[in-house]
Amino acid sequence: MAVTGPPSPQTPTPTPTITPQETAPIGNPIFARIRIANSSDVPHLHKLMYQHAASQRLTHIFSATESSLSATLFNSPPFQSFTVFLLEVSPTPFPDGPVGCHPPITRIVNLDLLIVDPESKEFGSGGEAVVVGFVLFFPNYGLFSGMPGFYIEGLYVRECYRKKGFGKMLLSAVAAQAMKMGYGKLDWCVLGWNANAFGFYKKMGAQVFEELKMCRLTSDALQAYESFS
Amino acid sequence: MAVTGPPSPQTPTPTPTITPQETAPIGNPIFARIRIANSSDVPHLHKLMYQHAASQRLTHIFSATESSLSATLFNSPPFQSFTVFLLEVSPTPFPDGPVGCHPPITRIVNLDLLIVDPESKEFGSGGEAVVVGFVLFFPNYGLFSGMPGFYIEGLYVRECYRKKGFGKMLLSAVAAQAMKMGYGKLDWCVLGWNANAFGFYKKMGAQVFEELKMCRLTSDALQAYESFS
Repeated sequence: MAVTGPPSPQTPTPTPTITPQETAPIGNPIFARIRIANSSDVPHLHKLMYQHAASQRLTHIFSATESSLSATLFNSPPFQSFTVFLLEVSPTPFPDGPVGCHPPITRIVNLDLLIVDPESKEFGSGGEAVVVGFVLFFPNYGLFSGMPGFYIEGLYVRECYRKKGFGKMLLSAVAAQAMKMGYGKLDWCVLGWNANAFGFYKKMGAQVFEELKMCRLTSDALQAYESFS
Repeated sequence: MAVTGPPSPQTPTPTPTITPQETAPIGNPIFARIRIANSSDVPHLHKLMYQHAASQRLTHIFSATESSLSATLFNSPPFQSFTVFLLEVSPTPFPDGPVGCHPPITRIVNLDLLIVDPESKEFGSGGEAVVVGFVLFFPNYGLFSGMPGFYIEGLYVRECYRKKGFGKMLLSAVAAQAMKMGYGKLDWCVLGWNANAFGFYKKMGAQVFEELKMCRLTSDALQAYESFS
């Protein structure tokens, strides 16, 4: 049942009666879990990455395959190199205990409206759970601080789960891990036209470096240096 | 002896004689070597990093110490995490053979003018060799390609050695290593006001992503997420 707001105030009656509003939960609780992705998550991860490219209007340069992800991710212990946090939700609680080598982060989120997920089958991840989003990050280095940090290469939440705090959960999980490791910064890039993303990140407390421009050598321009030795 | 240009054209004579110009080398050859830095290079590296911050007008946020560099660099095999290539020059050839686990890259550079290095003592690295510059890089990830690349956090050549091809040598060495490892890209950031750097990088074949803005969570804004778990 969709609930569009908090229950209406009760009208006092001489003998207490239970109204339907009182037996119904306030909002729709949903259980969320962030855990480290592993190689069995590649099919979901690949679909999410394609959707992420689509959200940035960049599918024409998307060439990642399930094989390339399997070959290049999950080769190092978590947090030492490329690491993926996966976000799942379920209408029932997730089982207790660690998933792999890292304790998952769990939350109960009270939604005003039930989410209708048109891709729930495609993103099913066991029981009633579905995969909702991811964040991919890896250690970077601060040349002025002489300390490592994390760089977030991409963060994505599927469309029907947006504006419910899930993006903030994923970013917060990386920030908390950075703090746990004594790392001093968290960096990422945003496309200039993406006003929504800017608003979200500024609310999270981020600085934006207007003056920094990203440069890249790739394809033939990179290949030209192959013989340098 | 400083030579300001190529030798003057010879005047033809009936019997060939050897003029002083012919016995003198054309220009001033200098031997350059790029090798992987190790923990014994930290004092030089720290000085170079400070100069790098000064060149970006950012010494007010420079807090790296020799201890922080020693603790955070050199903990992984080269190229798997933070890696530093160090550039040295010497008026005499460097000894043959590998330095550590990686073969160095060597070049002979013919200079028009001898370089007067006011910091030659401070940056002396054995024999007549001096440390001239560095590049610090580490693996990053391409979310659209599903492939790793390298990110260059900083590249620096001491002032008196600039405009002689040494910066290009350092960047080329990283590009060549990326190609050797099958990596598809090389990324770095440049401050918008640094027209010299832009010119240099564009000549190297780099694209500039005007639309990408770097965001950062650090200090108190990052610390706010410490308790998220």
